[in-house]
Amino acid sequence: MTTDLASHLDRDAARAELFDLLRIPSVSADPAYAADVVRAAEWLRTKLGTLGFAARVDATAKHPVVYAERLDAPGKPTVLIYGHYDVQPEAPLEEWVSPPFEPTVRDGRIYARGSTDDKGQAYAHVRGVELLLAQGDLPVNVKFLLEGEEEIGSPSIIPYLQEHADELRADVILISDGSRFAADVPTITYGIRGLSYVEIHVQGANRDLHSGSYGGAAPNPINALCEIIARLKDEHGRVTIPGFYDGIEPLTEQERAMWASLPHDDAAFAASIGVPALPGEEGYSVLERIWGRPTLDVNGIWGGYQGEGSKTVIAAKAGAKVSMRLVPGQDPERITRLITEYVPQIAPAGVRAEVVPHHGGQPMKFRTDSPYITAANAALRRVYGRDAVFARTGGSIPIVAAFADILKTEVLFVDMGLNEDAPHSPNESFAVQDFENGILTSAYLLQELGQA
Amino acid sequence: MTTDLASHLDRDAARAELFDLLRIPSVSADPAYAADVVRAAEWLRTKLGTLGFAARVDATAKHPVVYAERLDAPGKPTVLIYGHYDVQPEAPLEEWVSPPFEPTVRDGRIYARGSTDDKGQAYAHVRGVELLLAQGDLPVNVKFLLEGEEEIGSPSIIPYLQEHADELRADVILISDGSRFAADVPTITYGIRGLSYVEIHVQGANRDLHSGSYGGAAPNPINALCEIIARLKDEHGRVTIPGFYDGIEPLTEQERAMWASLPHDDAAFAASIGVPALPGEEGYSVLERIWGRPTLDVNGIWGGYQGEGSKTVIAAKAGAKVSMRLVPGQDPERITRLITEYVPQIAPAGVRAEVVPHHGGQPMKFRTDSPYITAANAALRRVYGRDAVFARTGGSIPIVAAFADILKTEVLFVDMGLNEDAPHSPNESFAVQDFENGILTSAYLLQELGQA
Repeated sequence: MTTDLASHLDRDAARAELFDLLRIPSVSADPAYAADVVRAAEWLRTKLGTLGFAARVDATAKHPVVYAERLDAPGKPTVLIYGHYDVQPEAPLEEWVSPPFEPTVRDGRIYARGSTDDKGQAYAHVRGVELLLAQGDLPVNVKFLLEGEEEIGSPSIIPYLQEHADELRADVILISDGSRFAADVPTITYGIRGLSYVEIHVQGANRDLHSGSYGGAAPNPINALCEIIARLKDEHGRVTIPGFYDGIEPLTEQERAMWASLPHDDAAFAASIGVPALPGEEGYSVLERIWGRPTLDVNGIWGGYQGEGSKTVIAAKAGAKVSMRLVPGQDPERITRLITEYVPQIAPAGVRAEVVPHHGGQPMKFRTDSPYITAANAALRRVYGRDAVFARTGGSIPIVAAFADILKTEVLFVDMGLNEDAPHSPNESFAVQDFENGILTSAYLLQELGQA
Repeated sequence: MTTDLASHLDRDAARAELFDLLRIPSVSADPAYAADVVRAAEWLRTKLGTLGFAARVDATAKHPVVYAERLDAPGKPTVLIYGHYDVQPEAPLEEWVSPPFEPTVRDGRIYARGSTDDKGQAYAHVRGVELLLAQGDLPVNVKFLLEGEEEIGSPSIIPYLQEHADELRADVILISDGSRFAADVPTITYGIRGLSYVEIHVQGANRDLHSGSYGGAAPNPINALCEIIARLKDEHGRVTIPGFYDGIEPLTEQERAMWASLPHDDAAFAASIGVPALPGEEGYSVLERIWGRPTLDVNGIWGGYQGEGSKTVIAAKAGAKVSMRLVPGQDPERITRLITEYVPQIAPAGVRAEVVPHHGGQPMKFRTDSPYITAANAALRRVYGRDAVFARTGGSIPIVAAFADILKTEVLFVDMGLNEDAPHSPNESFAVQDFENGILTSAYLLQELGQA
């Protein structure tokens, strides 16, 4: 099949509809937006219905799942396209140049919360299907599974997958929710990191204290929290939690060589985020540290007086949100248990420290030699004019382990975004060209899979 | 003079008027309350005017000063009574049982921001003067100097003292802005700690980053800030800033013996603030650490995502407010300079750390054998039925050094409060009995000074 689909792509309509979806503030982490999350699900159901899909919105214990299927290709493979229509919180709001839920194009990029993570990429698949339908029937059987809880760890998805396992059966699951290695380097991702996310709470006195009357004698929970956090890593950039590195699958020589050959430059990478150095685990390159080694980062910290001016107080309590990215061989529940036991042991005298768990996610690694990978590479070659590279991603997608366990189906990652999209940051964006290339990649990929 | 003034004290009127003053939210640290600060000054001027004082409100570069004098005792000593009518910010508001600016009596205590620090104590002197005036003329010449910037380091007071040095001349300066050692232990304070207050700002990348895409390679300013703070003290409870302990006046054997004989109990002290231990500088008792040794405490810390749920972000920046209580021999400006130079040196690779100074305050120590001390002890004996103890305070009162330098006048501290008043905390309070005893103490003290 050699039809050039690009000339048939209605770019304006695709963009206008994506904007409609981006305008819905479907923030899953904040209960105040629950109704908007439902609204986004309904919008997608309606759209897929217009494309001839049997589409429905299924309620869950929290946010709904959109399921749609069009099974018109007997004897052909079945492709399950997974994405999420929920988005990260917009905070800090004051740092957005244009409003997070009013999509704005600047310099060829669509600025909005969710433009790249994940609405732009998920909707590119919807438009890819629409593009193929304008040419005739779909070359494969297509199912869409679009959830509303990915940003909060997909708490409802396991029961959902178990309940609908038969209906969700497919030959391959297609996911686009990340970044290409570089603008001109199409990328197939064959691994994701896992996640363990906790909060550390430190309690000092039973009330805030005057630092003159009590300073030097009363324990200070903020100083203590800092000591705990500082003790979680050593001077070699390694996490000190006992047992943390047990069982980690080492990087293979092939991986290290493959990644070392990628067009990555430490100085350019550092300059792109405006830092003078890239500290991390000794003995590993930057790509190895992001794709193949675990980490520990404090995502937020609070305590005491944060307002204008000075206040000489010894706060009663302090806290921090801490997350660890994990790699194959590490189990998120075990890691959470290890840090839960370790923190009280390393807390200084006089304070009480406890760990409260949040959601986790399994690390995963896939085969790089399947017919699905071959089809994906062919599709990417058509759009980008070169072969794809194979990379792992530093991010976590909790549902992928659930797909492997419950649906027993291989996952194919073809990411459309770029690091500079800044997902999870203010001024998140998605290049118009990447959105359009994503639509084309999706369409070509389904064509290639129809011939696999 | 043996008149029992207690029977002449109009307790209801005194309390009602104190409540009026407490209702004015004279928060000096927050520009939003500037008009209320002025209103409190005017209220005091009016009150002192009704007592026959020549009273006025003097504008400064920031908050006004109330000056009042009644010089009816030729040949008698002149007493300058200093206090402050500004108060700490009320945050965290949600922890107050009754509103901070609606004085409420519970269990014999007046709950309001400023009830003990310092309105209740300063106003007790006004009522003490009023009590004496009801009996006849004042036994000494009395001047009131009430400022509105003590909680923010009194930035305008030095120029004010220099400009009005002649007018403010006195034989002794009387200050009540702290705590007795215990409820039944009248206390004369002969030393105060100094203060160096700074903010530490740490900058990582030029924007918030996705912790999956960048975790393991990008510097994390929150982790870095924690490391910096953890490095500011060692495992013996000592501050690590080079030169920090230079020139400190050691505690005398007499002081150590005197304080060791006070009715202090570590276990009771710890239980009163609900902590299992009282960590601090090794080799020093709790009282020695609070009254005679320097400290370093983090008063507030912030960075990253503090909201509900989880957000996997590597923040672009983080910060903390850090203050050090100082003792005689340490100069606040030098200490601020030392930490400003030290922090960037101990910052981990990849981040930029800088120190921004806030206000400071000089440490001070006074003679314990003057006629003023003798008079104060006599007054306290009349009210409490026993001699006073001599203690230093852990707090800082920046103006005291200015009094010594510019007015060259000795300071006499007679504090009316108690530690459980919880100044600077939510639910600050001042016992009704302490307020009334303070009024009597003030009146008796002026009588004793009139005979000194």
